[in-house]
Amino acid sequence: MSAGFRARHLAIVGLGLMGGSLALALRGAAEHITGIDLDAAAREQALKSKIVDAATADLYAGVNSADVVVLATPVRVIIEMLSMRIGSYLRSNTLLIDLGSTKQDIVDAMAKLPIGVNAVGGHPMTGKENGGIQEADGSLFHNRPFVLCPSRRTTPAARLRAQAFVESLGALPIEMQADRHDKIVAGISHLPYLLSATLIATVADQAETDTAYWELAAGGFRDTSRLAASDVTMMGDILSTNTKAVATLLAQFRMQLAMLETMLLAGDEQRLSQKLGPIRLARKKWARNYESQR
Amino acid sequence: MSAGFRARHLAIVGLGLMGGSLALALRGAAEHITGIDLDAAAREQALKSKIVDAATADLYAGVNSADVVVLATPVRVIIEMLSMRIGSYLRSNTLLIDLGSTKQDIVDAMAKLPIGVNAVGGHPMTGKENGGIQEADGSLFHNRPFVLCPSRRTTPAARLRAQAFVESLGALPIEMQADRHDKIVAGISHLPYLLSATLIATVADQAETDTAYWELAAGGFRDTSRLAASDVTMMGDILSTNTKAVATLLAQFRMQLAMLETMLLAGDEQRLSQKLGPIRLARKKWARNYESQR
Repeated sequence: MSAGFRARHLAIVGLGLMGGSLALALRGAAEHITGIDLDAAAREQALKSKIVDAATADLYAGVNSADVVVLATPVRVIIEMLSMRIGSYLRSNTLLIDLGSTKQDIVDAMAKLPIGVNAVGGHPMTGKENGGIQEADGSLFHNRPFVLCPSRRTTPAARLRAQAFVESLGALPIEMQADRHDKIVAGISHLPYLLSATLIATVADQAETDTAYWELAAGGFRDTSRLAASDVTMMGDILSTNTKAVATLLAQFRMQLAMLETMLLAGDEQRLSQKLGPIRLARKKWARNYESQR
Repeated sequence: MSAGFRARHLAIVGLGLMGGSLALALRGAAEHITGIDLDAAAREQALKSKIVDAATADLYAGVNSADVVVLATPVRVIIEMLSMRIGSYLRSNTLLIDLGSTKQDIVDAMAKLPIGVNAVGGHPMTGKENGGIQEADGSLFHNRPFVLCPSRRTTPAARLRAQAFVESLGALPIEMQADRHDKIVAGISHLPYLLSATLIATVADQAETDTAYWELAAGGFRDTSRLAASDVTMMGDILSTNTKAVATLLAQFRMQLAMLETMLLAGDEQRLSQKLGPIRLARKKWARNYESQR
């Protein structure tokens, strides 16, 4: 996409949907791509599909000669790598970006890296229902927002390079502070996941005495419950590193739900429809914008 | 589909997505189809697309000579028609079926119809994101469950005819009592709608001070919030005629959500993942079955 970003040696830690898609999207901008993953099957698939040029399970060997390193593992593996080992493995002036879904804990860990490592937190606002490198898609980032969160130590030069990196994916860089990012994703991503999972838990509980719940469920149930099928390790990491913002949003959600329920139980249909009408319009307006940008 | 069902004159009250799709699905089984709707544009569209043979705004004229009448309006219009007028308009031995999303109030009203009207409550478990007759689709009912709820007065002969009617749509008849149906749809349909609408209300409230909530929302948010775009009159009718079952399910939902939140706030990740893992599997198992039947 952009001619402004080049990598001599790109190292991607984590060969899942995100890491694999990133490798495909940067094929033209990177001379050499190494994939690092502990899972032999993921490495084999990445090599076989020519998603990467080389693959290894050895973090040191994989990132040691890279000038751009992307961390594409679950959030807590990212934090562990940042805190424990990776700083001493990297060359000076390496651009280090992660793709984790929460940002405050990650940029806090980035701020403690050795001077000379140019680290920026990243979060591409995209995904797919199913994960895994077999789902990798070089157009996954196209026209989607890609949040960049500087750490206390991110230099202006690192910010510019990170923006060029994002543009080379065909994505739209949006810079913001990590705490703001984490509040937003609590609302648009972590709350929806919890609602979806709790819906399944509620229906599964009822279905223990009447399996027709499952038999009659249709398209609306499918959509509302889709996020409940998300990877549990990934979601556990995300929720555990964003507990405070999630709890705040849950309190807001409960308040809104109680309002609707009160109107419903009171038979106050005029107020109910005065509340549901604008909700419907807000959803339609957002969906129209979202679909038009894809 | 089935050779067992024939209608001499089919009258469909309500020319929306459901009524229109039903007309298309019964084209072969009905000699003549009349559509009844107060909306001139819907009537015109139904005639122009040859979905019906005749169209009128006059309920009496539309149903008076029919041997099969289908009520495909919002729930409370169905109840109003059943209570106020339609019984005296119908010929003896007419098969009367409705497509309303809640059933107890409807079959209660059906039980008060004149003797000789063969009324059975119906609910096809299918739909589309967008409504309106322009979305009508003759395959909408294919392989989908179609619940039939007898009233206290439904005769064995009427039940058999209603089953043949459902089979002629290519749908799968499932007979159950109205109260059981209403409990089930509270879980698989009305609760998801309320969660979806409340999610939008919560995010819209946050977005008043930070519009980036809308800008960053992506596919997971789209799926979880989809039902919030449902027609408000239709949903208001549904919720108002199923308040008790919905309130019971909401209480169950709140309990399940509180359990998840407690584990999250306690940092009890092992229990959290022991809870989320089976939820994920239950969703995946249901979705696999659902998709394989379509």
